[in-house]
Amino acid sequence: MRRHDPARRDRIVDACLEVVSQVGVAGTSHRRVAAEAGVPLGSMTYHFAGMDELLHEAFSRFARTVSDQFEASLATAQDAEGAARAVVALITDDVLSTRRELVLTQELYTLAAREPAFRRVTNAWMGRSRTALERHFDPVTARLLDALIEGLTLHRALDTEPQDVATVREAVSRITSG
Amino acid sequence: MRRHDPARRDRIVDACLEVVSQVGVAGTSHRRVAAEAGVPLGSMTYHFAGMDELLHEAFSRFARTVSDQFEASLATAQDAEGAARAVVALITDDVLSTRRELVLTQELYTLAAREPAFRRVTNAWMGRSRTALERHFDPVTARLLDALIEGLTLHRALDTEPQDVATVREAVSRITSG
Repeated sequence: MRRHDPARRDRIVDACLEVVSQVGVAGTSHRRVAAEAGVPLGSMTYHFAGMDELLHEAFSRFARTVSDQFEASLATAQDAEGAARAVVALITDDVLSTRRELVLTQELYTLAAREPAFRRVTNAWMGRSRTALERHFDPVTARLLDALIEGLTLHRALDTEPQDVATVREAVSRITSG
Repeated sequence: MRRHDPARRDRIVDACLEVVSQVGVAGTSHRRVAAEAGVPLGSMTYHFAGMDELLHEAFSRFARTVSDQFEASLATAQDAEGAARAVVALITDDVLSTRRELVLTQELYTLAAREPAFRRVTNAWMGRSRTALERHFDPVTARLLDALIEGLTLHRALDTEPQDVATVREAVSRITSG
């Protein structure tokens, strides 16, 4: 009966993200994910047709989680000014979570650059970000702001020089005052 | 004597980039690169201590090539307005080269997210971009513009909806009119 445990499938998906964040898609194997999830190896093929299906589900979950947080942050804003402040806070968020997100995001983009199935995941993510931003900004500004967030977050995570909050605030202010 | 052929080392580095663009870092092996370069397998270990050294050299070359093009484009601009036009042209450049660049850039960022040696490659690249932009813009604007270019290029390449030139022009105009 244990293999019908619905929590187990769930745990495998989470374990997959954890393994990818540690060793990359390149180093992710059924064996490694099973060990991380604490499930027998046979459980992997029972729940997933193959690594591609597992990765697709894991990255879909990752994108949904990040989108949920993004939406929740923007939902608390009362107006465009509050939304701009929320965006600055999202970009300048604590570096540790940024590092894990950076790794997972890059791994996802690397897959999306090659495979349409993963591009659908990134497109759904982009779509949700823009919709959340359009609650406060016109569609063009939402689109530009979305691209700016992407670039600033990436550069913040990769840069060796610290990126100060004032600079991020300035960028968001310029893009949103169209 | 053939193994002292300096062009051979060079060809291996180019072949490595080609293989990475086709099958990713994950699928890149000495065997595959040797076949692509048309050199015997033994030549690989003669010229490179290991895959990491080869990848480092290949991505350094890639970053240098992209930086060279970026600098050349900006060097022709007479003033900030001309530089803004050059930036728009760089972002909206033909999609095919964008696709290969996207794949290689994502692969590099994925390595940089984990390994300091590759982060030095991305940092040198970012540094050169900013310096080129600073010929026409103040340092803060150069930095913001660099992040915007990153985000717009990435979204352009990953998006399913086309990104029109007018939108890119609008973004660059907002960021540069600080």
